[in-house]
Amino acid sequence: MNKRKICFVITSEIHYARNRLVLKELKKRPDIELQIVVGAGALLDFYGDVLPLLERDGFPCHAKIVMTLAGGSPIAMAKTAGVGIMEFATAFDNLRPDIVMLRADRYEMLAAAIAASYMNITVAHIEGGDVSGTIDEHVRHAITKLAHIHFATNEPAKERIIRMGENPDYVWNFGSPEIEMLSRGELRFDRKRINEIGVGKNIDLNGPYLIVMHHPVTTEVGRNRKHVEEALHAVHELGIPAVWFWPNPDAGTDETSEGIRAFRERENPKNIRFIKYLSPDDFLGLLHGAACLVGNSSAGIKECSFLGIPVVNIGTRQEGRMRGKNVIDVPYEKEAIKKAILKQRSISGGRYAPDHAYYQKGTSANIAEKLATVPLYMQKKFHD
Amino acid sequence: MNKRKICFVITSEIHYARNRLVLKELKKRPDIELQIVVGAGALLDFYGDVLPLLERDGFPCHAKIVMTLAGGSPIAMAKTAGVGIMEFATAFDNLRPDIVMLRADRYEMLAAAIAASYMNITVAHIEGGDVSGTIDEHVRHAITKLAHIHFATNEPAKERIIRMGENPDYVWNFGSPEIEMLSRGELRFDRKRINEIGVGKNIDLNGPYLIVMHHPVTTEVGRNRKHVEEALHAVHELGIPAVWFWPNPDAGTDETSEGIRAFRERENPKNIRFIKYLSPDDFLGLLHGAACLVGNSSAGIKECSFLGIPVVNIGTRQEGRMRGKNVIDVPYEKEAIKKAILKQRSISGGRYAPDHAYYQKGTSANIAEKLATVPLYMQKKFHD
Amino acid sequence: MNKRKICFVITSEIHYARNRLVLKELKKRPDIELQIVVGAGALLDFYGDVLPLLERDGFPCHAKIVMTLAGGSPIAMAKTAGVGIMEFATAFDNLRPDIVMLRADRYEMLAAAIAASYMNITVAHIEGGDVSGTIDEHVRHAITKLAHIHFATNEPAKERIIRMGENPDYVWNFGSPEIEMLSRGELRFDRKRINEIGVGKNIDLNGPYLIVMHHPVTTEVGRNRKHVEEALHAVHELGIPAVWFWPNPDAGTDETSEGIRAFRERENPKNIRFIKYLSPDDFLGLLHGAACLVGNSSAGIKECSFLGIPVVNIGTRQEGRMRGKNVIDVPYEKEAIKKAILKQRSISGGRYAPDHAYYQKGTSANIAEKLATVPLYMQKKFHD
Amino acid sequence: MNKRKICFVITSEIHYARNRLVLKELKKRPDIELQIVVGAGALLDFYGDVLPLLERDGFPCHAKIVMTLAGGSPIAMAKTAGVGIMEFATAFDNLRPDIVMLRADRYEMLAAAIAASYMNITVAHIEGGDVSGTIDEHVRHAITKLAHIHFATNEPAKERIIRMGENPDYVWNFGSPEIEMLSRGELRFDRKRINEIGVGKNIDLNGPYLIVMHHPVTTEVGRNRKHVEEALHAVHELGIPAVWFWPNPDAGTDETSEGIRAFRERENPKNIRFIKYLSPDDFLGLLHGAACLVGNSSAGIKECSFLGIPVVNIGTRQEGRMRGKNVIDVPYEKEAIKKAILKQRSISGGRYAPDHAYYQKGTSANIAEKLATVPLYMQKKFHD
Repeated sequence: MNKRKICFVITSEIHYARNRLVLKELKKRPDIELQIVVGAGALLDFYGDVLPLLERDGFPCHAKIVMTLAGGSPIAMAKTAGVGIMEFATAFDNLRPDIVMLRADRYEMLAAAIAASYMNITVAHIEGGDVSGTIDEHVRHAITKLAHIHFATNEPAKERIIRMGENPDYVWNFGSPEIEMLSRGELRFDRKRINEIGVGKNIDLNGPYLIVMHHPVTTEVGRNRKHVEEALHAVHELGIPAVWFWPNPDAGTDETSEGIRAFRERENPKNIRFIKYLSPDDFLGLLHGAACLVGNSSAGIKECSFLGIPVVNIGTRQEGRMRGKNVIDVPYEKEAIKKAILKQRSISGGRYAPDHAYYQKGTSANIAEKLATVPLYMQKKFHD
Repeated sequence: MNKRKICFVITSEIHYARNRLVLKELKKRPDIELQIVVGAGALLDFYGDVLPLLERDGFPCHAKIVMTLAGGSPIAMAKTAGVGIMEFATAFDNLRPDIVMLRADRYEMLAAAIAASYMNITVAHIEGGDVSGTIDEHVRHAITKLAHIHFATNEPAKERIIRMGENPDYVWNFGSPEIEMLSRGELRFDRKRINEIGVGKNIDLNGPYLIVMHHPVTTEVGRNRKHVEEALHAVHELGIPAVWFWPNPDAGTDETSEGIRAFRERENPKNIRFIKYLSPDDFLGLLHGAACLVGNSSAGIKECSFLGIPVVNIGTRQEGRMRGKNVIDVPYEKEAIKKAILKQRSISGGRYAPDHAYYQKGTSANIAEKLATVPLYMQKKFHD
Repeated sequence: MNKRKICFVITSEIHYARNRLVLKELKKRPDIELQIVVGAGALLDFYGDVLPLLERDGFPCHAKIVMTLAGGSPIAMAKTAGVGIMEFATAFDNLRPDIVMLRADRYEMLAAAIAASYMNITVAHIEGGDVSGTIDEHVRHAITKLAHIHFATNEPAKERIIRMGENPDYVWNFGSPEIEMLSRGELRFDRKRINEIGVGKNIDLNGPYLIVMHHPVTTEVGRNRKHVEEALHAVHELGIPAVWFWPNPDAGTDETSEGIRAFRERENPKNIRFIKYLSPDDFLGLLHGAACLVGNSSAGIKECSFLGIPVVNIGTRQEGRMRGKNVIDVPYEKEAIKKAILKQRSISGGRYAPDHAYYQKGTSANIAEKLATVPLYMQKKFHD
Repeated sequence: MNKRKICFVITSEIHYARNRLVLKELKKRPDIELQIVVGAGALLDFYGDVLPLLERDGFPCHAKIVMTLAGGSPIAMAKTAGVGIMEFATAFDNLRPDIVMLRADRYEMLAAAIAASYMNITVAHIEGGDVSGTIDEHVRHAITKLAHIHFATNEPAKERIIRMGENPDYVWNFGSPEIEMLSRGELRFDRKRINEIGVGKNIDLNGPYLIVMHHPVTTEVGRNRKHVEEALHAVHELGIPAVWFWPNPDAGTDETSEGIRAFRERENPKNIRFIKYLSPDDFLGLLHGAACLVGNSSAGIKECSFLGIPVVNIGTRQEGRMRGKNVIDVPYEKEAIKKAILKQRSISGGRYAPDHAYYQKGTSANIAEKLATVPLYMQKKFHD
């Protein structure tokens, strides 16, 4: 049988985590040959080297591509995309996939989309049609306009993709793969491990604790340090134990990191432990027990809405993204952040009702089925 | 006064030609500092070195960027975009423009759009919203989704841009700059010069003559040689004198060139002269006197509709682009091409009524006015 | 057994041809795992796509790397080296060779040498220590200073390598692999095929004929057209049938090509047939029957000295390279070229005594043996 | 007058510091137009942004080039060189210098050398012919073989350059520019400032103090963390106040940094303050008062020999470099390092006799004079 070759591009550990079920479904189909290309942050220790995870989970790695420019600056992001196009092009030229499979809205994904497009390879895209802040908002829709096959993760996103002129016959909403994973998950995590990794004082995770994920906003370069400091002071002053994740490598990351580093040096906060990353399973285990997620991560919108975990969402990064009732939005202001955290901590039972806007049964199997069987086309046309 | 810095990106001679009026308007405004970056095909002799034209016309060149990969293959196009992002990023980092000004749908333009986007520079785009065939169709809309300011050249294009979620307050239709140029133009051209440039037999340009512009179609790589051969045989068999332009450097260009070269070597056609390029003014002069334009160039759709020149449009490259009554569409078949050319040559008076779908008064001045005065914004939002 | 991984880099068809015996020896050793990376000119149709040859000869291709910038200009060469480093680095990162095996003095080779060096991979180099003109002279010695294992092809070259501070224990002269191939070769070639390929008039290859290989000189950019024209006029005026090869893609190639193209168009020479390339075997077959080789190819120095074929070497490209008595050096002057060709055609028996300066028995097997068994080291030291 | 254009490439702050006198001499000559290109580490905050220093000192910046890949890995270094070639090529294409002026042995310099070489621009090189460990040893000599004009900084280096086949008429030893600067310097530094920058405990700089500069060794990737830990323990156990500089961004830098970071977190050493960098003047001021320099920096060999400051040089990084009596070499072993530091601290008067091996009067003026007046050539020849 002539297997369809699907080339899955992975550029960060969280990205791997969120797609693991899709990878498993693809791998077990006899009509698909799964190719995996690993690049960018997924190869940088700091952001979590994905290679050992692939090996542990029994997935192959057909090509790895180092591409990230140093500096955490806007120009470094742009150049990373440039290197990415060149190297993805070589990888696709050597692997000859039928479909390149992309996810979400990062610059490495746009690079892969462009390489595939010019090489006349069909592009499939998960999680198009969402809206948010930062450059991600621009890039997500640009990828949509380059992609042939669209797997939206919620209804409004699906409608937006169609509205942008995409062929409705190639736009599906099967729900979000990471929410599917969450719906199945047995989430266990030995919280004591937190005090063995990362830096800072040991914290007590037996009572209520916070998780903080505060990433830079690329379109606010120059103000990211100020913004993270508001959050740092808020969490510090409340004194609730908190696990704080270092920021991802988008433009502005050095401002955010520097803000954290200087704060640590100066304040030596007793209630905050700073960690680089957790494996996906461990992260979900940790999340499961949290009293509140603070910051601007999309995990606050997606995973937490499904789990009913209270969220304090700070600033513009998730602006416009469809959210559940579990989210309180606040500006970059210490007092507003403190107030919102206290409010969230006090809700009855500590959990909101689960929101299923991003959830459907069989997400990953449905995606794999379409990838394996949908007729492919090359020339896109604008659908009026 | 604090001048707004507009960085105009030029990547081919035809691209320069079509934007010259806009450049002139920008240059003469006291509130604008015009920066010009020249790259890609605009620096390759074969496709017309733009630098002497800029010098002749009194325009500066702030940076030149060699970026085109050899091979005329899909992967070469992809990698060219990769090099382009990196180098445009450096150019923008050094020039610090307020606005990067792009045009149309080529891969170098997408590269510039990405570089500017990640560097938080406002992107303005002329000629978005059109529809056509080839990868250009994909790229054009991707650029739209990265751009902040849109200058459509016709009403349906404007509507499509808005439909894609762009802010209606930043989408204008001022008509097409090259049609404005055409509307003003005193088009004189000494036709005898054709026999002094290019290769092939001398041809007679005193009677009716054809112009042929047949470019590769990137999404039909592998079939471009066959397609150009149909056109070659058609024009050869008719025996009408023809000025034939070598193809542009998109993927598939080597197939098209090789088809032309082998045909020349074998048939030594008496009625065809092959030329690389003409300066913009000379091209319009030549076009003005033509009995019919044959091939798949957008000039056949845009310039010719305004001038009423009969066009035989071959194949899929211009599929979907709004066109006037002057165009007969034919497939890649010799007999169909011959029949259509004969029909076009026989129309009464040799000209159709002019079509003003792409024309408005003051196009360039209006574009310059908006660029100089419109409030700039960075974070894009999807407009429902 | 733990096989040593040898990664052979191939960047042009001639390069493949000259190393085929070495590849065969490497492939048949049980203690070696042969990896082949194909890039640059070896992937461009115009210069001979190596992939089908590898397949025909039963060699694998582990990675192919498109890297050549268009334009035939100095900056295009430089940028090609830049792309090359990035992409070779990725290939080596994925293949993890113990040794990267390079040949001669082209810019793609320097790129591979740098990538390997920074990645702490041992570099082996064939044909270091020679001297010549053009940028090749600079690059060859730079590669030597990056390489750990040196296979000179003649004694003076070996001495130069040692003099440059290399460890004498890692410098060998086993002779030149292509001369070894020549020494074994059964060289048959159906000359009639020449008139089936290439362009130009049919020529008579039953009597004495010339082969012309005239490449651009990178350090003489701006004068290459003038130089090739002297050779064109000389060969044309003599009227001896000649097979003329298009130039290689070094900087200046467009000048040389343009000179040839314009000459053809104007003069339509009856005694010259222009061809792009021949397969290695066919080339040697054709060379075997030639009355004289004209131009500036190293084949004129190396292969021809062994075969005793008369050579007219034009200009500076081979300056300093050790040569046999079969070579007459002339400047870029038509009359001098004509005179030298006539002199060479008139020598008794048409052949010089063979010169064995580049020849030794067992070249390829000896090289393979050392690659398989020599202890590897990483940190280089200058040997006084 | 037709000024000669000299393009000076600066890739780190220390690199700028060491060449400032040369830049001043070049700038004040009426027959020279000084161009400055800033790239790589010189644009990364972490390693000291050079742009404000240039502005303070009245030097222009003609182009800045972001090129450093993240990760501190061998492949990141290789790719940085690849990006560097491409971007230096563009910068040189836009600036059209007569001479590109390079220094020492870093990968960005090799990239600039290759770009200039292929573009037929004369390459001048300061500090060739030295010997040392790490990949720098390989790269330094490769640059020499690409360069046309050589400014060695000591006699043995000059002899090595000539021995490598360089034209003796273009090799000079005018001494080392940074030693010349040192010989003039009024070295004042307010030591209290150390406790205002960097991280760690406040230290007492009124009594004897150490400076530690311990960089990764590229050819020892995988062992750099272990190596720096030996030094950390040694310095910590001695308890002498120490100013410790973060490592430079060569491959292995993450190992070294991680070693330092983990040590700090665990031991919280009272006698060590960690700082990123000092301005050149401040560094020399600090150095002037030090009891001993510890680590593997070339400053330990060059600057300290001239000043007579005791040095404990650890490991292979400076292997082979000519040194004065002020240096004690030790392996990567805590006890050996401790013993050597104690020995150096105890020497009578705290200083050795100055060594003038790298010193000559008028270094910078002599270099500038040659750059302005020496006849330029393009084609290199091997001098036997």
